[in-house]
Amino acid sequence: MMDQGTMENGVENVQRLPATDDEFGGVVVEMKEHMDSEVFHTLLKTSMSLWKLQGKKGVWIKLPIYLSNLVDAAVKEGFWYHHAEPSYLMLLYWIPETQNPIPGNASHIARVGAIVLNDKREMLVVQEKLGNLRGVWKISTGITHEGEDISVGVVREVKEETGIDTEFVEVLAFSQHHKVFFGKSELLFLCMMRPLSFDIKIQETEIEAAKWMPLEEYASQLSPQENGLRKYITELCIAKVDRDYSGFSPTLVTSYCDGNPSYIFLNKGDLNKQS
Amino acid sequence: MMDQGTMENGVENVQRLPATDDEFGGVVVEMKEHMDSEVFHTLLKTSMSLWKLQGKKGVWIKLPIYLSNLVDAAVKEGFWYHHAEPSYLMLLYWIPETQNPIPGNASHIARVGAIVLNDKREMLVVQEKLGNLRGVWKISTGITHEGEDISVGVVREVKEETGIDTEFVEVLAFSQHHKVFFGKSELLFLCMMRPLSFDIKIQETEIEAAKWMPLEEYASQLSPQENGLRKYITELCIAKVDRDYSGFSPTLVTSYCDGNPSYIFLNKGDLNKQS
Repeated sequence: MMDQGTMENGVENVQRLPATDDEFGGVVVEMKEHMDSEVFHTLLKTSMSLWKLQGKKGVWIKLPIYLSNLVDAAVKEGFWYHHAEPSYLMLLYWIPETQNPIPGNASHIARVGAIVLNDKREMLVVQEKLGNLRGVWKISTGITHEGEDISVGVVREVKEETGIDTEFVEVLAFSQHHKVFFGKSELLFLCMMRPLSFDIKIQETEIEAAKWMPLEEYASQLSPQENGLRKYITELCIAKVDRDYSGFSPTLVTSYCDGNPSYIFLNKGDLNKQS
Repeated sequence: MMDQGTMENGVENVQRLPATDDEFGGVVVEMKEHMDSEVFHTLLKTSMSLWKLQGKKGVWIKLPIYLSNLVDAAVKEGFWYHHAEPSYLMLLYWIPETQNPIPGNASHIARVGAIVLNDKREMLVVQEKLGNLRGVWKISTGITHEGEDISVGVVREVKEETGIDTEFVEVLAFSQHHKVFFGKSELLFLCMMRPLSFDIKIQETEIEAAKWMPLEEYASQLSPQENGLRKYITELCIAKVDRDYSGFSPTLVTSYCDGNPSYIFLNKGDLNKQS
């Protein structure tokens, strides 16, 4: 688990925690094996002295949840929490006196809302079993999974909640909301979807009811003072069906992050228009 | 710190952790005062037995970082990490045998990229000091802060990096990239910006150089095989300037989350077109 003491410049190095350098002048300690918390504390103190002498910047410690006995020692040495996932906790210490430039944890949930219209001008609507929209006919919505494309997540959500197969057409609009979930923000993408099947089979655990509702009936539920998303869902839907509204549709692009394919969503009609 | 034992149905309740009910049938333990970890462990065991009997669902424990001595006991009782911020760790236990329906932590960073064009068809470009785009002339980009609107974050980033004041016009396109930062995803919003000042003053710590570059010169940097974002930045820019490309512009809407004003970004020209 620990590096053996070695001779360097004629001085015997003390034992320290195993660490790898990162590309920003910092080190990453990824703990895997069980260790007594006092042994860990001693090694951490020694290692930190060494890294400070070496001019290291950020020091990361990744502790799997089965090493929760080591959290307290790291905090006592001045580390703070950077982020956590169910299986691990990531702690951080910034050595330089300059301000820590490391970005915080992820800040947004990506939610999708599905506007599914059949060719009878009917929209797919659901009533949820829980939450503050109980009893309201609304579009199917859900949170995208980690690593899931928006265009994939919205197809999955509609299928799960209503049993309807759909094809993603485009993003009609998006909205941003803050302090939605533990202080985090949300980006909600309203997606135009083409239905590929029509027989509804609801998800019993979360959905009370689902049906195809005439667009005009959906619109008639709104009060004249309505200025929420439901107003825009109605207007976008009518503009799309009757007036050729252009949203953003996906085009494959090489990601600047890792060179893998990603989607860029843009107004394809306008981009390809001839001048 | 703990509830006193009380008489209920003629039976004396044992001491338990202070908790409040949440709206989903669960309880929230928000620890604030220092406590010995063994005392906490005992109280947690007793409390969990009680909450199981009461049919509670999710049990949340929020531990401020100064109570890191209690993390290990909670994990030993079967809690896992839900999320962490610099100052606290949130742990979760799902009592029912059904699948835990609680959404995970935030999954996305919201990044903004600023396309700032002056009326000489010149684009504001920068070279960064660090990272894999060193030496490349690129648009100014940055990560929005917690709770910050996209349209505000992009103005701030341009100002910080180049000293240029700008006004947000619209989102020309957005792209989604996965596994960008500790497994998290990124949504990148390419924003059209109108410059309100023209004298560049760079941020010395992060930016090597900044200048106004003719659009055609920016385009000429790209190889014919280029299929990354830089190709679309060029094309979107030319489509916007020469062909009236419509992106998504912001309109105030009442948030469905909390009734506060939020922005919905949509194709305003198309939405307001007469049929």
